[in-house]
This record gives sequence, C-alpha cells and structure tokens, in this order.
Amino acid sequence: MEHTLILVSAGESEWKTSDLFTGWIDVLLSKQGVEEADLAGRQLKREKVQLDLAYTSYLKRGIDTLNHILAQMDQEYIPVVKSWKLNERHYGALEGISKRQTAEAYGADQVQTWRRAYDVEPPAVDEDDDRNPVLDPRYRKVDPAMLPRTESIKDVSDRVAAYYEETIVPSVRENGAVLVCGHSNSIRALIGYLDGLKDEEITKLEIAPASPRIYTLGDDLSVQGVRDLF
Amino acid sequence: MEHTLILVSAGESEWKTSDLFTGWIDVLLSKQGVEEADLAGRQLKREKVQLDLAYTSYLKRGIDTLNHILAQMDQEYIPVVKSWKLNERHYGALEGISKRQTAEAYGADQVQTWRRAYDVEPPAVDEDDDRNPVLDPRYRKVDPAMLPRTESIKDVSDRVAAYYEETIVPSVRENGAVLVCGHSNSIRALIGYLDGLKDEEITKLEIAPASPRIYTLGDDLSVQGVRDLF
Repeated sequence: MEHTLILVSAGESEWKTSDLFTGWIDVLLSKQGVEEADLAGRQLKREKVQLDLAYTSYLKRGIDTLNHILAQMDQEYIPVVKSWKLNERHYGALEGISKRQTAEAYGADQVQTWRRAYDVEPPAVDEDDDRNPVLDPRYRKVDPAMLPRTESIKDVSDRVAAYYEETIVPSVRENGAVLVCGHSNSIRALIGYLDGLKDEEITKLEIAPASPRIYTLGDDLSVQGVRDLF
Repeated sequence: MEHTLILVSAGESEWKTSDLFTGWIDVLLSKQGVEEADLAGRQLKREKVQLDLAYTSYLKRGIDTLNHILAQMDQEYIPVVKSWKLNERHYGALEGISKRQTAEAYGADQVQTWRRAYDVEPPAVDEDDDRNPVLDPRYRKVDPAMLPRTESIKDVSDRVAAYYEETIVPSVRENGAVLVCGHSNSIRALIGYLDGLKDEEITKLEIAPASPRIYTLGDDLSVQGVRDLF
C-alpha cells in the first residue's frame, strides 16, 4: 500500500510585516495568509487528494491554515490532531522583541547566529515570564518538564522527529493520506528528517508559506517520491 | 468533581431563508450564522469557560460554528472530535426539496407530520440516490448498515442518546468542561435526554441557533443545574 504524506506550513501571519520575533506568540493569519491557505486547499482539491487524517500545532495560525485548507477541499469532517510538538520554534527571550533592536543590542552577527545556527539557543525566558509556556493554560496538560523556554533549530528538529516517529508514522501506516500543517521551523525539521538533510542544509532550507509538499511513501514508509505543489 | 457540559446548535445556514429541507445536505453558515457563532464564543469567553474537549458533527455548518466559537474563546487548540452521530436529522427523500412543493404534493398535514411527529420517517432515499450517505465519501469509514436513508425525530434521539452514553459521558467524566456543537434536531435530542423530557415535549422544543445551554453535572454525571446563555 502506498501512502501520501503532505507537509504544509502556516500562511503569512499578521506579524510578517512587523519587525518582531514571533515563535510561540499566538498571532493571527494576515489577509494574505488566509488567501495562501485557501489557494493551497483549492490546489489539493484539484489534485483530488482524499485525506484520512490531519495534524496541526497549538497555534492559531497553524490551526486556521488547516481549517481553510480543509474547507476548500470540502473535507472539514476529517479528524484533526493538534499537538504543541508541531509548534513554531520557541524563540526564547527574543519572542515579541524587535529584530532591529535586538541587532542594535547584541550585534547583527549574534542575531544571525540565533536565527540560523543549528545548535544555538537564544536566551531562555525566565520562569515567571509570561512567555514561559508553563504559565500558559493551553499547555496545562503537557508535562512541564517537556516545555521549552527557548529552542535551537536542533531542539525543534529533535522534538518534531520524535513526534513523527512516535505519533505520525503509526497513523500514516494505517491511512492512505495524512496532512501535517506546521510552521517554518517545524516543517523545515520534518523535511530535513524525511529527506535526510545535513544540519547545515536544514538551516538553509527556505519554506514558502502554505505551499504543500507531497511525499509518496512505500509500504515501509520510506520516501518513494516527492513534489512541491507550487 | 463538578463537570460542565455545554450544548450549542449550529448558526443559521444559507438555506434558512430558502424553502428547502436541509438535513444532511452540506450547506454553509450564512453571514448571520457566522455572527451568531462569534457571539456565542464571545459570551463563553466572558463566562471564563475553560474547555477541555469539544464535539461536533460531520457537517460544515456544525464544524464552522465550533471553529468560530473556539476562535472567539482563544481556545482553538482544544481537541475536537467529529462524529456523524451529531449530524442534523436525515430528512430522507425530502432533503433539498421545496417545503411548499412538498405541501402541494402531499398536503400540509402530511408535511407537518413528517416534520414534527416523534416517530414518523419521511420517505427514504433510494439506494442509488446521491443523498444516500453510503455513497458519500465522508462516510466511507462508517459501517454502511448504521447509516440512515431517512430518520424520524425518534431515530435521531436514539442515535444521539447512544453516542452520549458511549462516547461523550466517558470523556466528560475525565474532564472539567466539554462542549457539544450539533444541530437543531441532535441538540434537541440531547436536551430531551438530559432533561428527561417526554417524546411530545421533545418535538415541541425550539432550539435557537448558536445559543449555548450550560449544564452542571455532578460526580455521577446527573444534572445539578442548567442555564441558557441567551
């Protein structure tokens, strides 16, 4: 039995045109982000994809992107599993902070390292900081020891790969077509994992918003083929 | 431990102002229906309801109503379970047919009986009719023997009560607050079941669109209190 796995990141957020690090901050899709999600859904409908299951994150812009895709596909009834493990990268103390001001304070090189080095975490938020996920009611059922106060790209890759193996793989095995709607960093991590990319290749991968990438997986769930819809 | 169970029907559909029987036909929310759903969500937010789980049907207008409610509550991340057992009543061969024309063909009394008698099914759709759920891909994973080709109000009450006991009750037992978003007939059936109404009382119950009804349930899940938000 062949399986289809579709990866897609959230559409553009309202902060795209701002200068602020977003991460786990729960901003909405922009108008353009909604249009991108709708377009992805229409394209998947044109491809006659019949989904069995979909995954998304705990963030509004991920969930809304998936809702728009499913609505355009006329497949709102598909079961949806939400997990914080598909969230965007937690940017630590940079979340909600101006990129320009961060560069002025720490230097452009340091900011570039925080953004694109594979294994470097930005400064963590304090325990009592509003941005600490442990204080956010949405994560109240998650083991607090699991929740990050900052993440490197490697940290995201590790959590996403573990979620893929533990949760997504068993469900793909039982189903024909599964869609995963994440965010730039979580989708980048999944592509890196599926495509066997090296660490530095992962950091360079550009993820276009709401652009479906379709994998064909064999019986043993190895990658048989891949294509990007846009 | 006290539990909260919130029942709400879908907002107004695009066919509300038409003259057509809707049932399982997958019409969208009207603009007013969206506003009703948003208002319900804002009201539940004002009540500081923290949900643990939500249920809805396989129909767009039910799923969309729930999505709007969760968005207004800032609780999109809540797990959502979708089931055809919360669908609107299947109106059989009347689905998509004009009420006026039906009255002209069969008489107003017959139509009134089909609409409001407790135990009378409208004529069933044929096996090969597009409106037979067995032919609809969304129900492809449901045992075909379970799927109706017409339903009386009693049929809806039976399937909803069974779903409540088998699926909703165990999940309410484990959780503080559960929301069920259904349709006029499925919510009427649930209210009838919870309030211990007689058959003819159920048929007379008027369900306002997207109006949350909040039950407080005791440790044994018996009803301790109930209030309507509007």
